[in-house]
Amino acid sequence: MSLLHPDRLFPANPASRDIARDLFQSVQNVPIISPHGHTDPRWYAEDAAFTNASDLLLVPDHYVLRMLVSQGVKLEDLGVAPLDGGAYARDPRKIWQLFAAHYHLFAGTPTRLWMDHTFQTLFGMQDRLTPANADLYFDTINESLTQPEFRPRALFQRFNIEVISTTESALDDLRWHQMIKDSGWNGRVVTTYRPDSVTDPDFEGFAANLDTFGDLTGCDTGTWQGYLDAHRARRAFFKTHGATASDHGHPSAQTANLDAASAAALYGRIRTGRADAADRALLRAQMLTEMAKMSRDDGLVMQLHVGSSRNHAAGIFQRFGRDKGFDIPARASFTAELQPLLDVVGLDPSVTIILFTLDESNYTRELAPLAGAYPALRLGPAWWFHDSAEGMRRYRQMVTETAGFYNTVGFNDDTRAFPSIPARHDVARRVDAAFLADLVADHRLDLDEAAGLMQDLTYGLAKKTYRL
Amino acid sequence: MSLLHPDRLFPANPASRDIARDLFQSVQNVPIISPHGHTDPRWYAEDAAFTNASDLLLVPDHYVLRMLVSQGVKLEDLGVAPLDGGAYARDPRKIWQLFAAHYHLFAGTPTRLWMDHTFQTLFGMQDRLTPANADLYFDTINESLTQPEFRPRALFQRFNIEVISTTESALDDLRWHQMIKDSGWNGRVVTTYRPDSVTDPDFEGFAANLDTFGDLTGCDTGTWQGYLDAHRARRAFFKTHGATASDHGHPSAQTANLDAASAAALYGRIRTGRADAADRALLRAQMLTEMAKMSRDDGLVMQLHVGSSRNHAAGIFQRFGRDKGFDIPARASFTAELQPLLDVVGLDPSVTIILFTLDESNYTRELAPLAGAYPALRLGPAWWFHDSAEGMRRYRQMVTETAGFYNTVGFNDDTRAFPSIPARHDVARRVDAAFLADLVADHRLDLDEAAGLMQDLTYGLAKKTYRL
Amino acid sequence: MSLLHPDRLFPANPASRDIARDLFQSVQNVPIISPHGHTDPRWYAEDAAFTNASDLLLVPDHYVLRMLVSQGVKLEDLGVAPLDGGAYARDPRKIWQLFAAHYHLFAGTPTRLWMDHTFQTLFGMQDRLTPANADLYFDTINESLTQPEFRPRALFQRFNIEVISTTESALDDLRWHQMIKDSGWNGRVVTTYRPDSVTDPDFEGFAANLDTFGDLTGCDTGTWQGYLDAHRARRAFFKTHGATASDHGHPSAQTANLDAASAAALYGRIRTGRADAADRALLRAQMLTEMAKMSRDDGLVMQLHVGSSRNHAAGIFQRFGRDKGFDIPARASFTAELQPLLDVVGLDPSVTIILFTLDESNYTRELAPLAGAYPALRLGPAWWFHDSAEGMRRYRQMVTETAGFYNTVGFNDDTRAFPSIPARHDVARRVDAAFLADLVADHRLDLDEAAGLMQDLTYGLAKKTYRL
Repeated sequence: MSLLHPDRLFPANPASRDIARDLFQSVQNVPIISPHGHTDPRWYAEDAAFTNASDLLLVPDHYVLRMLVSQGVKLEDLGVAPLDGGAYARDPRKIWQLFAAHYHLFAGTPTRLWMDHTFQTLFGMQDRLTPANADLYFDTINESLTQPEFRPRALFQRFNIEVISTTESALDDLRWHQMIKDSGWNGRVVTTYRPDSVTDPDFEGFAANLDTFGDLTGCDTGTWQGYLDAHRARRAFFKTHGATASDHGHPSAQTANLDAASAAALYGRIRTGRADAADRALLRAQMLTEMAKMSRDDGLVMQLHVGSSRNHAAGIFQRFGRDKGFDIPARASFTAELQPLLDVVGLDPSVTIILFTLDESNYTRELAPLAGAYPALRLGPAWWFHDSAEGMRRYRQMVTETAGFYNTVGFNDDTRAFPSIPARHDVARRVDAAFLADLVADHRLDLDEAAGLMQDLTYGLAKKTYRL
Repeated sequence: MSLLHPDRLFPANPASRDIARDLFQSVQNVPIISPHGHTDPRWYAEDAAFTNASDLLLVPDHYVLRMLVSQGVKLEDLGVAPLDGGAYARDPRKIWQLFAAHYHLFAGTPTRLWMDHTFQTLFGMQDRLTPANADLYFDTINESLTQPEFRPRALFQRFNIEVISTTESALDDLRWHQMIKDSGWNGRVVTTYRPDSVTDPDFEGFAANLDTFGDLTGCDTGTWQGYLDAHRARRAFFKTHGATASDHGHPSAQTANLDAASAAALYGRIRTGRADAADRALLRAQMLTEMAKMSRDDGLVMQLHVGSSRNHAAGIFQRFGRDKGFDIPARASFTAELQPLLDVVGLDPSVTIILFTLDESNYTRELAPLAGAYPALRLGPAWWFHDSAEGMRRYRQMVTETAGFYNTVGFNDDTRAFPSIPARHDVARRVDAAFLADLVADHRLDLDEAAGLMQDLTYGLAKKTYRL
Repeated sequence: MSLLHPDRLFPANPASRDIARDLFQSVQNVPIISPHGHTDPRWYAEDAAFTNASDLLLVPDHYVLRMLVSQGVKLEDLGVAPLDGGAYARDPRKIWQLFAAHYHLFAGTPTRLWMDHTFQTLFGMQDRLTPANADLYFDTINESLTQPEFRPRALFQRFNIEVISTTESALDDLRWHQMIKDSGWNGRVVTTYRPDSVTDPDFEGFAANLDTFGDLTGCDTGTWQGYLDAHRARRAFFKTHGATASDHGHPSAQTANLDAASAAALYGRIRTGRADAADRALLRAQMLTEMAKMSRDDGLVMQLHVGSSRNHAAGIFQRFGRDKGFDIPARASFTAELQPLLDVVGLDPSVTIILFTLDESNYTRELAPLAGAYPALRLGPAWWFHDSAEGMRRYRQMVTETAGFYNTVGFNDDTRAFPSIPARHDVARRVDAAFLADLVADHRLDLDEAAGLMQDLTYGLAKKTYRL
């Protein structure tokens, strides 16, 4: 028996399946370009062994946490430490057993595909995880993790990663990136400039963050111009650690294009605590345009992730903090919201802005038409809840006819879960192979074109668009 | 010839079809759990013969009425009595002939599937309904209806219904449920607590309804606490007639979480006629949270049906009243709207709130993420206009990857049309079999898992979630 | 080799494909009814030869322009003349070569399908367009265009067009339609009444347009009644040139139903320059209801196209003007917006209003329920960005179960690109054949019904609904 069928995710129709299989095989061994994600650079810097199956695969994975919590499991029992120092499960074996007892909940979800891929390809498991074999799984994985070939750098090579990008706060000292560089290791790990903590007045500790931002850069963040200079300095610093992109997580895609005096006055109100909610939203909006202008100057590709209502459950946020599975999407739109920014840089082909949404109704209505017209715009892949077989398929079906393939940017794994990276790229490559196969099977595309597109969707578009 | 092909609604690809057929056959004879619907409990109480084909199958079916009206047929000519005492068709044979002349309009719709299923399995018809055989149909059906095996209780047994829930107003005396109980019949018919007439200040006769509500319960509905006590009393009364659930039809999912003093003040303004539209909406919002808190106390499962703009055509409503096919969905959302309620009960696994929408853009963007995180939330099946093969397929495709199968609750037939109940469950089982077969065929699911899920989607989830 | 496979766009599953092929073949030679589009009546009036491949196929096609611009090509380099008299490419061969160098961008888009169809069926090309064969293409097409059988009237016959509708401004003198009539040619070309320039106060030159409108009709457009009379007169004039329909392009579907005095006062504010943005929107809303009432009187079918944010890029609009590919859809809705109009004419089966949207979330939520209830409403086909294989398929999948087939109106090619008309109808017929084949293959429809529907979707519904 095997957890992974070689034809998984291919079309059921035999003729289409044969085409998909050929297309997939042509890219199966192509190196991974991972231009956006959230793995911890410390792993690559220290190259220390991972500790155990639960701490590696479960506790940091918000997809796992949220599904189990939705069925009544407590976060404490999954090893998540309450902020108030309250009790929580510390025995990784018990956590693993709890996961195994609920593994059926993941039937039909991407977590199931990712986990099974990890279980089989990394740890050699052949039988589906159940309560009965939970201990065998746990022991086998833990035993593997003690081996040198399961250390982060060895896995990085084994995963055939050509380059991976991490994401750091604008206030981060990039010490782990420095340590990687100093180590002489030849794995390519680059950072990404993520300034939300100093562009969003609603971010925790925003005022103090601006002080730190000034200290780090020697710029006077008490003034608008000094604040912008601090961004410029920090972007340059990130570029010295390989950054080719910035990333911006905003509740909406609203942008603004204030004149310099109005922007300075707005910043003054924010900085001196006289701003209301509309001012705070306006600064976020203005800063997207400022970042786009800096991108025009320094060449960083700009990523905009829109539409998550973060920390939706106050009870979870207060007790456990961020990123515990309780971020819920809300309605988003782009057409009117992006217009101020696009008036400034939208027609400039030297600028690249990559748009991501959690609201799939945006695909055909707004995003494909925008990216299919403005030279500065590209569409990021299906994101987060939509990073799944059906989600990716809907994305291609809804985007391609208006924006084509070449206004998309390949795949992002976007993950904190290092071992799942090959699994996620495997799913994306298979879904793209299946989509292209369907176009060939009904004669919308010739086979030689599909083969070329398969390479571009897997490798070329990500490398080129992200300037990697 | 036959109206029903045994492989209807299964995938066209032979390998997938074989899997779907096996899955379907495994549940074909499983009893029906009908946890939400609108059949008339009087039928089961009195067990009187149905009168004729038109009064049984056409006049009460808003799906039938709306389609014929959309093509220029008048409601009067379909036997619907104007409220003003105006003339209307009273000859059921003529109504039936009118329906037969327009039967082609239903090609590709669920009404066609339901009707053909009823025609063949109940009345033995083999040829498609046309003007030419309309009289034969009419006479055959009417002849059948005189037979004892076509009385409501006999059909209930023949349909293999294990339990059915009706839906009654909070002001209903539940006399028919009492009569069923007193009769000693062993069919299980339970009620559901539907309090819209006493929670929605825009409901016809709201003030008088509150007076009646007080009279029925002996509670002082002049005060907020008395009003809440009246709900508690009434919920308890419904539970004595088998209720395991409440049901709430609201224009939006807006909830509120006022402190007791503010809520009492709001209720006072409403009760004394000093409330504006915002107050009326706020009471609806607050009452959802109150109902959820009562659910926590008394264990009733809470259903929330959102997004219908009722009685859209003033001309129809004034002339014919409610439920004549002119309810039109409007945009809905849940993420911000539910937050006040979820702050109170969302993390409590002992509470169950089932969400229904008419706005499919909610599925991936809001509903699956919410139900895939909050232990108190579950997703109701594709509802009303989406209770159809394509609608159910979209539901599974858009919900499963984020919420899994186990945050859904099985099927609701939700119907007033008693003879269509087996047809509706047949469609749901076939679509689920087809969906699972597709997952097996492309190796996202193993066959043994699909078989288990097939049972749960057909029977287990409805029975467990609705506590039946 | 061939650019066009005979089975293109049919389902991949062999059994379904066979059904689709048969259905398609049954309508392959059915005449084209083109009830809505934007071809230039001057072509049919003068019957002059088209000049060259680029001017015929590229420069006027906003689908082509937008895709190339999105990848960094300048409009000037595509032969689009700046309004300020700036330089632009005037060598059609160079423009063609530029197009050929970017032809891969259209993989998976409808433009690719339309172009290949034109290349092969009109010009006999067999190999995919590439930079290497760009000159051969250019020369072959140009050579053909000098032949008499490539003149507009000859192509009209060759395309098997039974009737085509153009679209003219309410201020147009219809001179080309008069010239066609005077010529004695037997091709049937009708106009459509498009009054946006005199119903939308935000239209360029609105005040002057109203003066012209008065001059043309002899009505006093200084008063509300005179203004309405001018519309009546102009609609009658358009009817003498074959018009059976009006067409209205509005940013939203908002309608209003003011009493005559309020409407007159509103018009007075507009006419005397004292109106604000809300007034201007209200006039647009009121005029939709006025047009519907006139439709009731004069029998013109009313088309409503909703949801485009026109001229989104100020830089493009100022430099090049309208219709250069920078119209971007925005969110739309209909349920509340149409209610005022529907209160007046919605229940009247003698009125026909055809609704079009760019927001696909409207299909299941609002449009199918509305058209499946109101006798005055019909649904236009998938429009603009959704005039594509996937777009049409989603349309049928989302609309049919609630509205059936008979509340839809067949296909519109809606194009300025005359040579693409057969290609567009070919795609629509194939997608409908595929959709019907899927319903037959899974036994939701009998084959004889599908054959009848195929005829109706191709020919009957357009002819009947548009009264052609």
